Amino acid sequence: MAAKPAKNRKKSSASANPMWGGHFARGPAQAMAAINPSIGFDKKLYAEDIAGSLAHAAMLVKQGILTREDGRAIEAGLKKIRKEIESGNFAFRESLEDIHMNIEARLRELIGDAAGRLHTARSRNDQVAVDFRLWVRSACDALDAKLRALQAALLAQAEAHAATIMPGFTHLQVAQPVTFGHHLMAYVEMFGRDRGRVVDARARMNECPLGAAALAGTSFPTDRRMTAKALGFDAPTRNSMDSVSDRDFALEFLSLASICAVHLSRLAEEMVIWTSAQFRFVRLSDGFTTGSSIMPQKRNPDAAELIRGKSGRVTGALVSLLTTMKGLPLTYSKDMQEDKEPVFDAAETLLLCVTAMTGMVEDMKANADAMRAAAETGYSTATDLADWLVRVCGIPFRDAHHITGQAVKKAEKKTCRLDELTLAELQAVDARITKDVFDVLSVEHSVKSRTSLGGTAPKRVREAIKAAKERWL
Amino acid sequence: MAAKPAKNRKKSSASANPMWGGHFARGPAQAMAAINPSIGFDKKLYAEDIAGSLAHAAMLVKQGILTREDGRAIEAGLKKIRKEIESGNFAFRESLEDIHMNIEARLRELIGDAAGRLHTARSRNDQVAVDFRLWVRSACDALDAKLRALQAALLAQAEAHAATIMPGFTHLQVAQPVTFGHHLMAYVEMFGRDRGRVVDARARMNECPLGAAALAGTSFPTDRRMTAKALGFDAPTRNSMDSVSDRDFALEFLSLASICAVHLSRLAEEMVIWTSAQFRFVRLSDGFTTGSSIMPQKRNPDAAELIRGKSGRVTGALVSLLTTMKGLPLTYSKDMQEDKEPVFDAAETLLLCVTAMTGMVEDMKANADAMRAAAETGYSTATDLADWLVRVCGIPFRDAHHITGQAVKKAEKKTCRLDELTLAELQAVDARITKDVFDVLSVEHSVKSRTSLGGTAPKRVREAIKAAKERWL
Amino acid sequence: MAAKPAKNRKKSSASANPMWGGHFARGPAQAMAAINPSIGFDKKLYAEDIAGSLAHAAMLVKQGILTREDGRAIEAGLKKIRKEIESGNFAFRESLEDIHMNIEARLRELIGDAAGRLHTARSRNDQVAVDFRLWVRSACDALDAKLRALQAALLAQAEAHAATIMPGFTHLQVAQPVTFGHHLMAYVEMFGRDRGRVVDARARMNECPLGAAALAGTSFPTDRRMTAKALGFDAPTRNSMDSVSDRDFALEFLSLASICAVHLSRLAEEMVIWTSAQFRFVRLSDGFTTGSSIMPQKRNPDAAELIRGKSGRVTGALVSLLTTMKGLPLTYSKDMQEDKEPVFDAAETLLLCVTAMTGMVEDMKANADAMRAAAETGYSTATDLADWLVRVCGIPFRDAHHITGQAVKKAEKKTCRLDELTLAELQAVDARITKDVFDVLSVEHSVKSRTSLGGTAPKRVREAIKAAKERWL
Amino acid sequence: MAAKPAKNRKKSSASANPMWGGHFARGPAQAMAAINPSIGFDKKLYAEDIAGSLAHAAMLVKQGILTREDGRAIEAGLKKIRKEIESGNFAFRESLEDIHMNIEARLRELIGDAAGRLHTARSRNDQVAVDFRLWVRSACDALDAKLRALQAALLAQAEAHAATIMPGFTHLQVAQPVTFGHHLMAYVEMFGRDRGRVVDARARMNECPLGAAALAGTSFPTDRRMTAKALGFDAPTRNSMDSVSDRDFALEFLSLASICAVHLSRLAEEMVIWTSAQFRFVRLSDGFTTGSSIMPQKRNPDAAELIRGKSGRVTGALVSLLTTMKGLPLTYSKDMQEDKEPVFDAAETLLLCVTAMTGMVEDMKANADAMRAAAETGYSTATDLADWLVRVCGIPFRDAHHITGQAVKKAEKKTCRLDELTLAELQAVDARITKDVFDVLSVEHSVKSRTSLGGTAPKRVREAIKAAKERWL
Repeated sequence: MAAKPAKNRKKSSASANPMWGGHFARGPAQAMAAINPSIGFDKKLYAEDIAGSLAHAAMLVKQGILTREDGRAIEAGLKKIRKEIESGNFAFRESLEDIHMNIEARLRELIGDAAGRLHTARSRNDQVAVDFRLWVRSACDALDAKLRALQAALLAQAEAHAATIMPGFTHLQVAQPVTFGHHLMAYVEMFGRDRGRVVDARARMNECPLGAAALAGTSFPTDRRMTAKALGFDAPTRNSMDSVSDRDFALEFLSLASICAVHLSRLAEEMVIWTSAQFRFVRLSDGFTTGSSIMPQKRNPDAAELIRGKSGRVTGALVSLLTTMKGLPLTYSKDMQEDKEPVFDAAETLLLCVTAMTGMVEDMKANADAMRAAAETGYSTATDLADWLVRVCGIPFRDAHHITGQAVKKAEKKTCRLDELTLAELQAVDARITKDVFDVLSVEHSVKSRTSLGGTAPKRVREAIKAAKERWL
Repeated sequence: MAAKPAKNRKKSSASANPMWGGHFARGPAQAMAAINPSIGFDKKLYAEDIAGSLAHAAMLVKQGILTREDGRAIEAGLKKIRKEIESGNFAFRESLEDIHMNIEARLRELIGDAAGRLHTARSRNDQVAVDFRLWVRSACDALDAKLRALQAALLAQAEAHAATIMPGFTHLQVAQPVTFGHHLMAYVEMFGRDRGRVVDARARMNECPLGAAALAGTSFPTDRRMTAKALGFDAPTRNSMDSVSDRDFALEFLSLASICAVHLSRLAEEMVIWTSAQFRFVRLSDGFTTGSSIMPQKRNPDAAELIRGKSGRVTGALVSLLTTMKGLPLTYSKDMQEDKEPVFDAAETLLLCVTAMTGMVEDMKANADAMRAAAETGYSTATDLADWLVRVCGIPFRDAHHITGQAVKKAEKKTCRLDELTLAELQAVDARITKDVFDVLSVEHSVKSRTSLGGTAPKRVREAIKAAKERWL
Repeated sequence: MAAKPAKNRKKSSASANPMWGGHFARGPAQAMAAINPSIGFDKKLYAEDIAGSLAHAAMLVKQGILTREDGRAIEAGLKKIRKEIESGNFAFRESLEDIHMNIEARLRELIGDAAGRLHTARSRNDQVAVDFRLWVRSACDALDAKLRALQAALLAQAEAHAATIMPGFTHLQVAQPVTFGHHLMAYVEMFGRDRGRVVDARARMNECPLGAAALAGTSFPTDRRMTAKALGFDAPTRNSMDSVSDRDFALEFLSLASICAVHLSRLAEEMVIWTSAQFRFVRLSDGFTTGSSIMPQKRNPDAAELIRGKSGRVTGALVSLLTTMKGLPLTYSKDMQEDKEPVFDAAETLLLCVTAMTGMVEDMKANADAMRAAAETGYSTATDLADWLVRVCGIPFRDAHHITGQAVKKAEKKTCRLDELTLAELQAVDARITKDVFDVLSVEHSVKSRTSLGGTAPKRVREAIKAAKERWL
Repeated sequence: MAAKPAKNRKKSSASANPMWGGHFARGPAQAMAAINPSIGFDKKLYAEDIAGSLAHAAMLVKQGILTREDGRAIEAGLKKIRKEIESGNFAFRESLEDIHMNIEARLRELIGDAAGRLHTARSRNDQVAVDFRLWVRSACDALDAKLRALQAALLAQAEAHAATIMPGFTHLQVAQPVTFGHHLMAYVEMFGRDRGRVVDARARMNECPLGAAALAGTSFPTDRRMTAKALGFDAPTRNSMDSVSDRDFALEFLSLASICAVHLSRLAEEMVIWTSAQFRFVRLSDGFTTGSSIMPQKRNPDAAELIRGKSGRVTGALVSLLTTMKGLPLTYSKDMQEDKEPVFDAAETLLLCVTAMTGMVEDMKANADAMRAAAETGYSTATDLADWLVRVCGIPFRDAHHITGQAVKKAEKKTCRLDELTLAELQAVDARITKDVFDVLSVEHSVKSRTSLGGTAPKRVREAIKAAKERWL
């Protein structure tokens, strides 16, 4: 089936939109009816829209702009509509374009003229701004909670493996031994920074645009502080034109989501590599693995690959909205209707990825033997030899580096580990070497010795885990 | 309502997947069951999947790999399934992951064991590659047809306005008079190049990956040329590993779609500017305009704005897939399941935008008076004066440019048009100027004189329209 | 000239790199010598690199890892090198790959063996991490200062035009009258949020990775708190592997830069539109305008267009680094060398754009007459009529909206402003209208009446300016 | 050092630009002088600019618009300037903005007034369009040649390893045995498609915009076919407004470059994985490997990582220009000056990456033993068992798949290969299995058997190599 063709563009509906079509002779063309409505995706905002309307109505009553009677009717009507939507008994209509109009039209059916008074001193421009901001704020809270759970899963594994030795890699080449716990704690830091960005973004977006009306503010004696407070905002926004033009909160959310997705993609890449037959560092649970319809032996790390791949999707959503917002004059332009889908998709994608990653981390079994064996290959303690030459023999690091390179070459030729070279062989490289050197050439010693702040020594790792638990959980 | 949280990740389904789960003790975790399936979007490929299976089955029969009897059962079963899907009587199941498994499982219900034989000499990897390629190929054809219609609409307006004078802009400053028809013909060129890219991409993707099996080819005596031909491909692909790893066809489609979306965004931007109260060059029909829920006088060019904004979405889709594909080792990785949604979304978005733009172009009414008046402001014939000085008086262009600048300054001071300066005033700037100069200072003369190949002279525009109709319609 | 071809890839230099090439038989191939070095761009980090080395050396001395004598020699040598670089007397060598090696090699020339001891307890991985972080931190400070200047320029213009009436636009259609000062204050809000993001990012990145060594920490008794403090960091980083793998600070900077660039692009777009012959709302100074080499009358808003266009460049830089970082396993991979150029380019681009925008805003002359005239077109006070009907006659807003639409239609037919309709004509639309309505139909009244918090009433605008000055300047 | 601050924006140069500043009272502000010029990067176009001018001058002479004398002076002058630039004796001036003005100003110094006549019937808008198009066309040719060399290198290795067995991977899990030659041939296909895209893009861009003048064409009797032919174009462009507004050729080049960069990133990722201590499939030469300044044993695949990382840069360049072009009204806007740097950078980056990859491929040594050993792990011939059950026993594939899964499980428990199970053990899984099955369980047999078109059987691979040589070299 080919891409579904848009409908015949020539026909247009008999009558114009009841909400704004007073001076229109004709309704939308069919292509317009297909491209214009947002109800297909913005119905996701129904709860935010009703919450905003309830707060607005209460304020109008308090300020004497609306009668108590109208206020009560509006409140009851809106709550009924919420129930209708949540129980699946609400008929969304494309011809009513968006969630705001759909709810308002239904309200009019339920309570009559009073429904029309709800729209006093506001417009769809500030209404959608407040709805969407509330949604993104909730997404921030959900993301923060999910990331906390992922940190908890990483911390639990790190604790179990604070002293489990594995090769530390640079360039995917064995570099120095580290502990698996230390490696996982790097991700606790990353997701911690992500949470920091979430908190900052949430604080910055937590200003209420409601009451900016179409763009200029209103002449009704509104109390914007009251609606802001009712909706959990710290304050009202400061400039009515900015209030309806601003989508920074969405862009900032997409930015932090993209960075977080990159972090997830890195851990996912490692899981794919670690579960390969060549590495075997980790075994994922059946719950996060799939088989093959043609190769019966396969255990594919599909969840990890999907998480890795979906980082593209989140970056794509960010690019989408940055490009859409580029070069738009003030204030609201319809281009901005394109703000919601990338944010919805990125938020849901990211929450799902964090959840799946949490499950994978919780379930995964480290293969300590394979890790340990790998750590002993690749001359991973060469730096320890160089450091010993500096510390004990007082040789400048750059020279110690050179001497160590010679020792590695010798071991390569003999196809043995560094600590399997004889003292004589080492002394042939540099006469200053003594038998004490063998104390530093084991991977255990190497790891234990790296006690600098933030280093991989198990006691440092355990301290870091303790501190992280206090900070993040 | 916040972003919908993914389900509890800890529980997992009782039993493993029936298709590949033979050696799995346990089914997918809930988070896995949420992240893994593609049936939510790849059911869009049902027709392609069935077409591919029919071609594969016919080939297996022809080659003696499948009995005629099995072949007949498979064919009948698949056709029945297609009907079930098209009539809405097919129960898609998430637990069966994707469209391929959903159809195969249903086929087994319908015809029993023979269904299992259909999967001989192929895998899901080449199956999805062929399905998706067929879909993208259809999208190319649909896009080409839609762009042709848009060119037709532009050509019709260009013909009506081959001699309608408007200001030509650079930097949104009035530069030289042009005709509205000539301006529209620039877009006919752009969309023509888009069609050229569609044709090239289609030709390049028109090779059939079916029969590559999982990645290595197969030992069954298949005839890949037969299946390729049956599905309208020019040839089978040449390397089995590439066949299942390649998503160039999707990336190339997204690239051409992004460029096309940029073209649309430019015309849309012009429509937004042209319909402003300050320009009034064009009036869009009611069918592509909306009103305001708060400002009753508004006629908002929403369709144009949406088209402009949606260019971000298409670019985002391209970035999404480029990023996803970056750094993937051969052959199939599950990351590649992320290929479909951006392509589906970009294709549908773009087709809708082209359709809406076509409608807008067909319906729009040019305001020739406003255009003409604007063309006469801004000293748009200053270049004509300079050219006259070069041609008639033999003055080097750079000097003529300077003289003309002086004349413009004088007219600005007098707040008149260039052709409203007196001869004496012009001669005070440069004595070589004669009364013949007034022949070239009108916008009509200016436009008529630009007869170089591809120039704005109405007769050139009419020739260009004629040639374009022959080339593109 | 075609793209410069890379040099013959087959030849390789006679000898391996002196710093790490101990066990290499052969030097880099020519293509490697072309692709590998970063000195071409990372020499920009010389001051940061020397500052980091000075802090590191002082700490090594303090901890007894380095002798005082060596410490003094290193300090003197590094300061001499800084002078050589700043006076242009330093010969950067591609064969030494990067700024770290170039400085170290020169140090060895100047002070001999002690130079080699400086590299104790660190590696290029933490060295580049600290250098680059210091640079990005400075860029944050520079950006904050530049944005403050831009806010100051906007505030000065806003103050001068707190009561200058212009049309407020939605969809580039005249919506309601606003003041030019109010419009400009929307940008003060945007750039204020940008500054908030800068401050948050700076605080988050202000942790010192120095001392993480290659990836695992070190066995030398270092004091990372001391180096962190010396370099102005709040604390050392917490995990050595994260320290050398993390480029969040760069990604977060590029994110905030992209959002800021979008803000600039919006103001730039407005300037392009405002300076068109059709709008004439603003005249830019000669200093930010160009002419044409062929059309002598042109005054092109080139600076505004460049600022608008360069938003693409900044977004491109963000995408570049997000894509590069995607899917990288821990810890350092050479891919990460691609982190600097996009950040350097984005930072310099953005600082230049903010500076140019500041100059343009300072210099621009508002054309109050043209703005005022435009505000009176387009029935910009229609909302005021609707609001009056609600407030005075108690008509539900939706009905008032409909009545107003009829009045607009009547005025359109008569081609007059709303306040030029007679009372009789208005009463023919709705009998409840009285002559008091004329009090609200002028643009002055409209603007003055919008006194809600954040509204466009001049007294609100002046309050907002005062508050913004206190907050931001 | 922080990001270099732009210069004081307030001062402006004493005098306006000599080329277009006739009616300007004042020169550019300092920030303008910093943001506006393009000479810093567009001097790269000097040869194209001079070629364009030579062709234009010759045509003006032929058409009698320029005297033979002037023509000769212009030709001599331009050739002298070309020599000056190529010998490094040309003083580029920022105050002259761009390469066009720099050359023209120098020409005026050399030949006087005649220089001014060269600008007859053209403008900077069509001049830059033709210059840039010529550059991109050359970049296409260079890229095609480089990709051909890369294909040649891959073909040479593929030929040497047409029968070298390695594991074929899906999801980085061992799937089925393939040959290394077959794997490499997948990349020959990818780079072949890249070359196809280059050829198509080149053909599409090969139309000459020269003579479109500023935007409207010209009244001089030019011969655009003559200049088009002189510059190697197939034809002149068809619409003067499109000619100066179009940057499709740059966007299409960046699109194909991005796809090609993704291909390179995939091969680079494989090289990084293959050279890990865990895989050891491949050893890169010293010439494309680096060591570590702290870990003497390292052999880092830096070139591969840089190539992988630089795919982000090329994608970033594409996004940059797509975003810049989005929403630009016709015709030329200064935003479009941002077209060159991303294209220059992407072209040079990509050419360098292809060159380095070619060198790496030529130099790399496959470790056939390690590959072969890996192919025997992971039950890579499980599919062969399943296929045998289908073919010999007539069992439906889905059931055969299930039986094979049981056999794999048994082998896993026994920790042996599939062909190390006894017949009795296999028959315990399914009684229909006979001793003939052992013929198909070796990796050699598996590979040899996959003789379907495009399959991995060595004879198929050799045929594919032969065909590819004919097609591509």
